[in-house]
Amino acid sequence: MALSKTIEHQLNHRTYRELVDEPLDPQIIHELLEVARQTATSTGKQQASIIRVTDPELKKEIAKVSNQEYVGRSPELWIFIVDIARNAQIAEEHGMSVDKAINTSRFFAGYADAVLMVQNVYNAVESLGLGGVILASILNDVDRIIELLQLPKYTYPALGLSFGKPNQNPQLKPRMDMKFRVFENSYKTIDKISEALADYDEVMTQYYDLRDANRRVDSFTQQVLTSFEEDSSKRQRNLEIAKAQGFNFDVE
Amino acid sequence: MALSKTIEHQLNHRTYRELVDEPLDPQIIHELLEVARQTATSTGKQQASIIRVTDPELKKEIAKVSNQEYVGRSPELWIFIVDIARNAQIAEEHGMSVDKAINTSRFFAGYADAVLMVQNVYNAVESLGLGGVILASILNDVDRIIELLQLPKYTYPALGLSFGKPNQNPQLKPRMDMKFRVFENSYKTIDKISEALADYDEVMTQYYDLRDANRRVDSFTQQVLTSFEEDSSKRQRNLEIAKAQGFNFDVE
Repeated sequence: MALSKTIEHQLNHRTYRELVDEPLDPQIIHELLEVARQTATSTGKQQASIIRVTDPELKKEIAKVSNQEYVGRSPELWIFIVDIARNAQIAEEHGMSVDKAINTSRFFAGYADAVLMVQNVYNAVESLGLGGVILASILNDVDRIIELLQLPKYTYPALGLSFGKPNQNPQLKPRMDMKFRVFENSYKTIDKISEALADYDEVMTQYYDLRDANRRVDSFTQQVLTSFEEDSSKRQRNLEIAKAQGFNFDVE
Repeated sequence: MALSKTIEHQLNHRTYRELVDEPLDPQIIHELLEVARQTATSTGKQQASIIRVTDPELKKEIAKVSNQEYVGRSPELWIFIVDIARNAQIAEEHGMSVDKAINTSRFFAGYADAVLMVQNVYNAVESLGLGGVILASILNDVDRIIELLQLPKYTYPALGLSFGKPNQNPQLKPRMDMKFRVFENSYKTIDKISEALADYDEVMTQYYDLRDANRRVDSFTQQVLTSFEEDSSKRQRNLEIAKAQGFNFDVE
């Protein structure tokens, strides 16, 4: 029995990719946007925004970037963006030049604002018995996302969130024990981590991933090894793309 | 009346800097760590970790970096870090060389994992009638945080979270209307944003910020202008520091 209803939902968190093809009540959308509004924001600057994608053709184009077909069928697809453009415009309307000031600090302030907002909305979604999936896969081709959503200078996409009424019933995905991830006062490297994770690896191979036609998945250790073998270079240019969007990462 | 108890808490989100100087029930800590454990994580890789700071002297040193005295008195101070070190170690134990693979994509995957975890834990905290404050101020001197927490190669601090039983009663901080922050299908620049925000500016000047001896605060527009006048260059080196921690941002 969890200590709160919120925590009960959090401990039951699952990823739902398959969602019922029907619109959500506008009152729900309104309230989720109010949750987004009240999310903690660095120094109150509110440097994140949301693009709500309702155009079916646009969803399909984003699905291509994500390389996830189900994104094109998402009942609610929200793209959370770092948005310094609004505050930059305020400064420019007051005659200030802000070019150099849209810097590393602001980029990460906006990035944190956007990601905090994703999780806050996601918790609200789950509290209503709905579900969804966070999409980092939009970062596979940031140039294309910028083009599709017409993102101006001083903005940058952080994450997407697809949500709605679940249309599948996935198992709770096993996670490693927090003793491997929480340290007191200073970081502790765990000796022979691969061996230490043997029990977790065993549990993971018992888990059925609905994505893969109900087949069992690789151990965690094997998943990690495979991921290092894969080429993840397609996102390697993303800081360069952020620079092209006007973010100043230069060190003098 | 909110649509869920979770949302009711979220709509009442406030920042609590002053917390009662007493330890939280160990059961609460345990459950918050389980919430952290179940947080959504990019491709299941669990590339974020937590340093729980319990040493009073260490808290004071972190407070100096944050330049926020109350951080040194925090009953619970957690630093959430990007942690690719664990998975890199797994690969190295299997004879793989991962240097170049700890790249931009992995950095942002870990960064998102860490920030999602902050908000998820924060929502759990608030659901228990507790409160706290997210600390981006630890990023003022990342080198020092790395030294203090002995953060190894392939790790990087993302955000801190101070929480406990609130010892103050702040007003709900006004936020701009979401019509300025939510766009359908494509980004829309709002003409004359400074004028459009006049009503919000008026509301903001009615708000009392407990931090400033109960004086009223500047309008939002004025806060933005002031922030652009201030020097935020101390965080400008942070991507360089991440590079020094082993993250490969090079574009070939």
